[in-house]
Amino acid sequence: MRPDNPSSGINRRVVISSIALLPALSEALFSTAAPGQTTSDAPLASWNDGAAKQAILDFVRATTDQGSPKFVSPEDRIATFDQDGTLWVEHPIYSQVVYCLDRVPAVVEKDQKLKNVEPFKTVLSGNREAIAKLPQQDLEKILAATLTGMSVDDFEAQVKKWLSSAKHERWKRPYTELIYQPMLEVMQYLRSNGFKTYIVTGGGQDFVRVYSNQVYGIPVEQVVGTVGGTKFGYRKDGTPFLTKEPKLLLNDDNAGKPQGIHLMIGRRPHAAFGNSGGDREMLEYTGAGDGARLMMLVLHDDGHREYAYGPAQGLPASKVGTFSQVLYDEARKKGWNVISMKNDWKRIFAFDERT
Amino acid sequence: MRPDNPSSGINRRVVISSIALLPALSEALFSTAAPGQTTSDAPLASWNDGAAKQAILDFVRATTDQGSPKFVSPEDRIATFDQDGTLWVEHPIYSQVVYCLDRVPAVVEKDQKLKNVEPFKTVLSGNREAIAKLPQQDLEKILAATLTGMSVDDFEAQVKKWLSSAKHERWKRPYTELIYQPMLEVMQYLRSNGFKTYIVTGGGQDFVRVYSNQVYGIPVEQVVGTVGGTKFGYRKDGTPFLTKEPKLLLNDDNAGKPQGIHLMIGRRPHAAFGNSGGDREMLEYTGAGDGARLMMLVLHDDGHREYAYGPAQGLPASKVGTFSQVLYDEARKKGWNVISMKNDWKRIFAFDERT
Repeated sequence: MRPDNPSSGINRRVVISSIALLPALSEALFSTAAPGQTTSDAPLASWNDGAAKQAILDFVRATTDQGSPKFVSPEDRIATFDQDGTLWVEHPIYSQVVYCLDRVPAVVEKDQKLKNVEPFKTVLSGNREAIAKLPQQDLEKILAATLTGMSVDDFEAQVKKWLSSAKHERWKRPYTELIYQPMLEVMQYLRSNGFKTYIVTGGGQDFVRVYSNQVYGIPVEQVVGTVGGTKFGYRKDGTPFLTKEPKLLLNDDNAGKPQGIHLMIGRRPHAAFGNSGGDREMLEYTGAGDGARLMMLVLHDDGHREYAYGPAQGLPASKVGTFSQVLYDEARKKGWNVISMKNDWKRIFAFDERT
Repeated sequence: MRPDNPSSGINRRVVISSIALLPALSEALFSTAAPGQTTSDAPLASWNDGAAKQAILDFVRATTDQGSPKFVSPEDRIATFDQDGTLWVEHPIYSQVVYCLDRVPAVVEKDQKLKNVEPFKTVLSGNREAIAKLPQQDLEKILAATLTGMSVDDFEAQVKKWLSSAKHERWKRPYTELIYQPMLEVMQYLRSNGFKTYIVTGGGQDFVRVYSNQVYGIPVEQVVGTVGGTKFGYRKDGTPFLTKEPKLLLNDDNAGKPQGIHLMIGRRPHAAFGNSGGDREMLEYTGAGDGARLMMLVLHDDGHREYAYGPAQGLPASKVGTFSQVLYDEARKKGWNVISMKNDWKRIFAFDERT
């Protein structure tokens, strides 16, 4: 954890240069976010038969069959899911960072003197090359200015509004439709077998909570994320309210994931799903428990239907934050299951035609 | 919040002088903690008819009757409960502080050089008068030494062992039997009507989690308390584990209570129960929401069956942390319900004979 770092920490894996790939600040094309959560009656309908699907089925059978030596009592059935790259698209840039950049004009509108101050000036220019070159500390200033300083209610309203209009440049759809249908099915399957599903994300806890229930069927209290402090105060009429503060409580990535799990859940998961180096400690922590444990990594190896990166592109181990060869090796050694998006998933998104 | 304060914050309302009332460090009289959760079939069986009981019944009817204009959908049925003085006895001193003092010999055993170092030397002496005179900063040293530095698993085992042997000096019973039976019935009644019950305590989150499920029927993830950071590390064999750190993340008292509610629950409660100034902001925050809201304060006015303090003893408003006259006045003004332990409760504890 970096308690002294005023940024909210969601920028931990941001490859700044990828900002060049950003669309112009999203136009306000209003549309109703209606993410597909449809599934057929069969569990894991969007999964091809194979080792990954079988591992999930075997795990559920082992933990829910009363006669199984690995039976897990319902109150201990905890499953945790990373979000970016595990439940929804993280390329070319985290959706929350797009949100922050899109939010800059409104921040400047409220505080005109920022107009000619960096990094706001550059963001307002819309010059993607220049935005992409902003140093990390400037990006942190943008995150602080757009994620803190407002009441928690105002923040929720701002994110809700953005989600209803912003679209991913490639699919021209709301970000909340870019959810991996097979992962929705895993969460639904686990829940129907008594598991409590949690999101454990390096993204902002308050950000993800805005859509977690609608999109994933996960209530706000089951979202664990990077989180800052709040300040309690009173409005003029005496009504109490909370303001989001630029003070980091938990950077919920890497070691922060097991820390966040202890803080918010208090129990070791029996199943954990991730896709990058930021999920490593969560998978290790999950795997260190007794009895049946399921650790799975989503491998982005489908450059056609989604993106190919990480080991699928032979990315070097030094590239922290992605699914590196080092993580791949650890997975093989420890018996974690690797999900090939290309081979294990019949379809990626709910809007994909079924094959 | 006091993020720079290395103590865990559970000492916020400790009246040092009350330590003089402590029993000698609890003897290891092992007994099975078997807290009474028995209730008759009728809801609120241990409550006398009256305004307080009626307020609870009315609130549940208004929020759960589909035809009610104040109907609350099940996912928004959140009820929060302070612990010390609201769910169990807090006099003459918080149980967790007794735990910390009882724990000192084991800490010194492991680190012999502390034997002649204050404040440990004084605690070891068993001299109650001297212990009572220890300044606040010394008490904080004791809290830090006994609540941090060990793995989360070791801490849980230590608390569990203590709970099985420590006894309250007055009742000669385990602390986990000194639960207010009428409050257990409120929690059960709310849960049976679709409410999710949370503890929101100034006490240590990890401490309360050890017994919350057994004693209150509240799972660990529904305990919000004062909480410190943890550190992720590996044992020699590569097994990952978490160590409790002397770094305060949240002082879950006063303004910290709504902050903790936002952090851990993410929704405003519809019902909140407290007993002291530390619960004021939680009650205000709860009351600031729309629709049906139930705010209740437990008044300790039964010197015979429990204790009489706060307004029942005419305690001055300056006495922070207790149910002061100021809080009493605010309750009357805002329509919060005051529960008289003497008049509203047929019995206080499960082990009391029914009247």
